[in-house]
Amino acid sequence: MKKFLNKPEQFVDEMLEGIYLAHPDKLKYVNNDLRCLVRADSKKGKVGISTGGGSGHLPLFLGYVGDGMIDGCSVGGVFQSPSADQMFEVTKAIDQGQGVLYIYGNYGGDIMNFDMAAEMADMEDIKVLQVVAGEDVASSPKGEEHKRRGVAGIFFVYKIAGAAADKMLSLEEVKRLADKAAANVRTMGVALSPCIVPEIGKPSFTIEDGQMEIGMGIHGEPGIDKGPLKTADETAQILVDKIVKDLPYEKGDEVAVLVNGLGATPKEELYVLYRKVSEILNKAGISVFHVFVGEIATSMEMAGLSLSLLKLDDELKELLAKPADTPFYKQFQL
Amino acid sequence: MKKFLNKPEQFVDEMLEGIYLAHPDKLKYVNNDLRCLVRADSKKGKVGISTGGGSGHLPLFLGYVGDGMIDGCSVGGVFQSPSADQMFEVTKAIDQGQGVLYIYGNYGGDIMNFDMAAEMADMEDIKVLQVVAGEDVASSPKGEEHKRRGVAGIFFVYKIAGAAADKMLSLEEVKRLADKAAANVRTMGVALSPCIVPEIGKPSFTIEDGQMEIGMGIHGEPGIDKGPLKTADETAQILVDKIVKDLPYEKGDEVAVLVNGLGATPKEELYVLYRKVSEILNKAGISVFHVFVGEIATSMEMAGLSLSLLKLDDELKELLAKPADTPFYKQFQL
Repeated sequence: MKKFLNKPEQFVDEMLEGIYLAHPDKLKYVNNDLRCLVRADSKKGKVGISTGGGSGHLPLFLGYVGDGMIDGCSVGGVFQSPSADQMFEVTKAIDQGQGVLYIYGNYGGDIMNFDMAAEMADMEDIKVLQVVAGEDVASSPKGEEHKRRGVAGIFFVYKIAGAAADKMLSLEEVKRLADKAAANVRTMGVALSPCIVPEIGKPSFTIEDGQMEIGMGIHGEPGIDKGPLKTADETAQILVDKIVKDLPYEKGDEVAVLVNGLGATPKEELYVLYRKVSEILNKAGISVFHVFVGEIATSMEMAGLSLSLLKLDDELKELLAKPADTPFYKQFQL
Repeated sequence: MKKFLNKPEQFVDEMLEGIYLAHPDKLKYVNNDLRCLVRADSKKGKVGISTGGGSGHLPLFLGYVGDGMIDGCSVGGVFQSPSADQMFEVTKAIDQGQGVLYIYGNYGGDIMNFDMAAEMADMEDIKVLQVVAGEDVASSPKGEEHKRRGVAGIFFVYKIAGAAADKMLSLEEVKRLADKAAANVRTMGVALSPCIVPEIGKPSFTIEDGQMEIGMGIHGEPGIDKGPLKTADETAQILVDKIVKDLPYEKGDEVAVLVNGLGATPKEELYVLYRKVSEILNKAGISVFHVFVGEIATSMEMAGLSLSLLKLDDELKELLAKPADTPFYKQFQL
């Protein structure tokens, strides 16, 4: 294991200390717990938005706490859910009387804990609604979308919901728009190499030389096809085909595209892949409103990438285009 | 070699095609040559700023072409200088009658070609001045600063010069400020693993298991100390000590800090390292104006990081704080 760290068991808390030291005017923690992260200040009177999840995916999840995006994040150990208590503390800190929307990925531990946190909030008369994001096409077949893992596409759900909350919309309306984003995004990933959880100290799985795994999850969950390394163009074709057929995305649709690096994959390669994605979408008559290329949801030092499409309509497009300014993600008006 | 690519010899041009397809409203190329990249539009009547260098370092170099930063970039093969002709074409495209400033890293091929391009520009009555950025403390001893390699610190030089040009300052004044930034920045890097040039197909050097190399350059140039992997805190101490003693940075100074990932190193680890950097600077009485954490200058999939400090005064601080908006780098007013 080659990592910049001190004691593996201190990895998450030391990372958080570094984050608070680097962004003191933007982020703070509550309840004297580094893992209960909230915005240093927030627009008054708006709906609060909270997320949470395991560490090891930066900028996901805490990186989207900031202006135009979300308000708080409970932080778990590497690939582990934070506790319901931590989620509840974040909820209390960000509620401004308009209620709180939870947006999180479709994983058992997170669902259980966010459900408990919502019950605790209910007992204190904080209104909570929930959006569970799951869009990894490889993780479950069409017809069983509710079983799908949440991966990089949750970025779009945060962006849409955050812009909606900034418009001072109601909790119900913010949830409606977040649900709409979640329902219209699809993702497919591909991994070339594993990652290493610091406390384990060695890769939790292997991908042999010359092999790639299509559909692997961001914690190394098995994919749908393990085989010889394909070219960038072949890979793009496989990912786009799976995604486009699934929703489906059709001729005349307008989409946002996200080409997400999983950690060790250079931006150069993401653009080589996008070149072919652009060509395929163009031929299919699907127009691209905006392309996001970079590391949006990672698995530490995993090599690989994911492709996400978000089908847009006028209201989603307006919200997606609004500026955002967090320590990890900045966007000017599109 | 596990990369998303098609034919290795097409890697750079296909990357560029992907970049133009992804950012059609921001970037274009001139002279019918993908490798002559310029802004799609630019503020009228300002000094032009051009850079150039080998591919494989995204966002460096072309990623800083955009609002508030620079205007054009000639693009070489992986780790290879672009040609003088390409540099000259970019120069002609971005000159608005106020002259052009070249800012590039201190490498033999780049210097030779930019010198030739400047001569070609002179023959066409385009006024060109040059700033050669070199700040890697490990690459040459104090007293021989002019021999130092240019690494991630060039980001600060672009940022300062870009903001100065946006204020409609003269070519001489933009150069003065860029020189001042270049003179006040110092960098130290450390590598944990090599990278692979696509056309070579295998690592051009090795770093054994359990080893790290302090001071390695971004093309794998030998460092100053190869030895057992140190903790994040020990690594931070070594990097800060080397940098602080070199300029030197002193009690009462105010600095900007850049913690730059070289490619495969997760953001989590960059923040673990920054935690200690912050503590050391704080103890030394050096205050931090702003911290930049992320991938600013990479070596494809190399694992490692670099630390840069920029000593600020009022005019550098004002320019550093101005917004910037390029496809690869976005900054709101600090």
